[in-house]
Amino acid sequence: MTTTLVLLRHGQSIWNAENRFTGWYDTDLSAVGEAEAAAAGRLLDEAGVAPGILHTSLLTRAIHTAEIALAAAGRSWIPVRRHWRLNERHYGELTGANKSETTARFGADQVKVWRRSYDVPPPPIEPGNPSNPNTDERYANLAPEVVPAAECLADVVDRMLPWFHDAIVPDLGVHGCVLVVAHGNSIRALVKHLDDVSSEAITDVEIPTGVPIVYELGDDQRPVERKPVLQRALGDAAAVAAAAKAVADQAANH
Amino acid sequence: MTTTLVLLRHGQSIWNAENRFTGWYDTDLSAVGEAEAAAAGRLLDEAGVAPGILHTSLLTRAIHTAEIALAAAGRSWIPVRRHWRLNERHYGELTGANKSETTARFGADQVKVWRRSYDVPPPPIEPGNPSNPNTDERYANLAPEVVPAAECLADVVDRMLPWFHDAIVPDLGVHGCVLVVAHGNSIRALVKHLDDVSSEAITDVEIPTGVPIVYELGDDQRPVERKPVLQRALGDAAAVAAAAKAVADQAANH
Repeated sequence: MTTTLVLLRHGQSIWNAENRFTGWYDTDLSAVGEAEAAAAGRLLDEAGVAPGILHTSLLTRAIHTAEIALAAAGRSWIPVRRHWRLNERHYGELTGANKSETTARFGADQVKVWRRSYDVPPPPIEPGNPSNPNTDERYANLAPEVVPAAECLADVVDRMLPWFHDAIVPDLGVHGCVLVVAHGNSIRALVKHLDDVSSEAITDVEIPTGVPIVYELGDDQRPVERKPVLQRALGDAAAVAAAAKAVADQAANH
Repeated sequence: MTTTLVLLRHGQSIWNAENRFTGWYDTDLSAVGEAEAAAAGRLLDEAGVAPGILHTSLLTRAIHTAEIALAAAGRSWIPVRRHWRLNERHYGELTGANKSETTARFGADQVKVWRRSYDVPPPPIEPGNPSNPNTDERYANLAPEVVPAAECLADVVDRMLPWFHDAIVPDLGVHGCVLVVAHGNSIRALVKHLDDVSSEAITDVEIPTGVPIVYELGDDQRPVERKPVLQRALGDAAAVAAAAKAVADQAANH
């Protein structure tokens, strides 16, 4: 028996719009992001994809994306689980900085390494960083050593996978269809695992925002069919390609 | 050590505005109801009442009230539990009927009995009722004998209490503060239990919409202080009294 795993990357946030490194900082959706979320919910509904449970990160932009999408799909009532292991990559000391300013300060090559390398984290966040998210109440009951000070994508894979194996996989068995609403890098980490993408190739995989990505998984919790992630996206192929290109262009510009 | 239980009745729904018996039918909030929800969240925030977990019914009007209120309070990230035992009273065959038409059909005295008596349920819903909520997917995994065909307030007390004892009380111990977003009659059932209100007196207790009601509970899971429910409401006393009067007037008119 196969199950269905739906991945949804949140739409534009206020800090996306302001071109700032966000990571664990809890910025909300912009109006554009809210519209993307509603469109994603309509795509789910039109495709007849009916999640039985929702998983989100602890970050408001993912949570509000899920709320808006499920309202549009008429499924606000499904059970919900939230976990920090689905959070965006922690951007360390870059958190809160304008991307252009950071490039001017550290150089484009260094910033590109921090943004796109698999295993080089940015500098750890300083306690005095005015946008430091680590002291937030929602992380107060975690052992301090699991709260990251900065993460590369390899770190995200390591801390995300326990949630996939211990929570998402069992819920796939119970509910048959699980919706995960998360972030560019936590979804990229999941895609790396599911599709067994190499450490080199994964940094070029672009996850479009506001487009549900649908995996059919077999009993081995791997995709039944191997194909590029964009071919799993719901909706018009041209629109999906445009969304992925917009994300890639944003990345290339910084 | 005491804990804090916050009860919030959802704001105006589309069917409230259309003057129809709703019960388990899944109508959404009206724009007025959305504004009430946001105001409730601001009241929580201003009072420094910080729920650590949310409990809602399975009905969209309660879920969306909770989402809007928690967004206004900056607490969208708290964990969520939903359960049918927090649903509104099931209005049986009256579900979907216009309240004025029902009065014309059955007489004002009979309708008053169904609305306000403690232990007389309305007629059971017919399978062919066009607004029958019982076939909805969200109840599909329940044993059929627990899905009501119609409920009086006594029935609501009986089916709500297991959720209070088995889910809300343990969560009060873990989180210290639990927010329950529910309905006029499921909240009335909780108030009846907590304040040990008689079966006669409870039908005159009005729960204002969109106003958080805050109970401080002791180790016996009973209120530390005895006082009328409206004195537990957050916000300006005159506004609370006006909200309760509005609810009472609506009830008296039908």
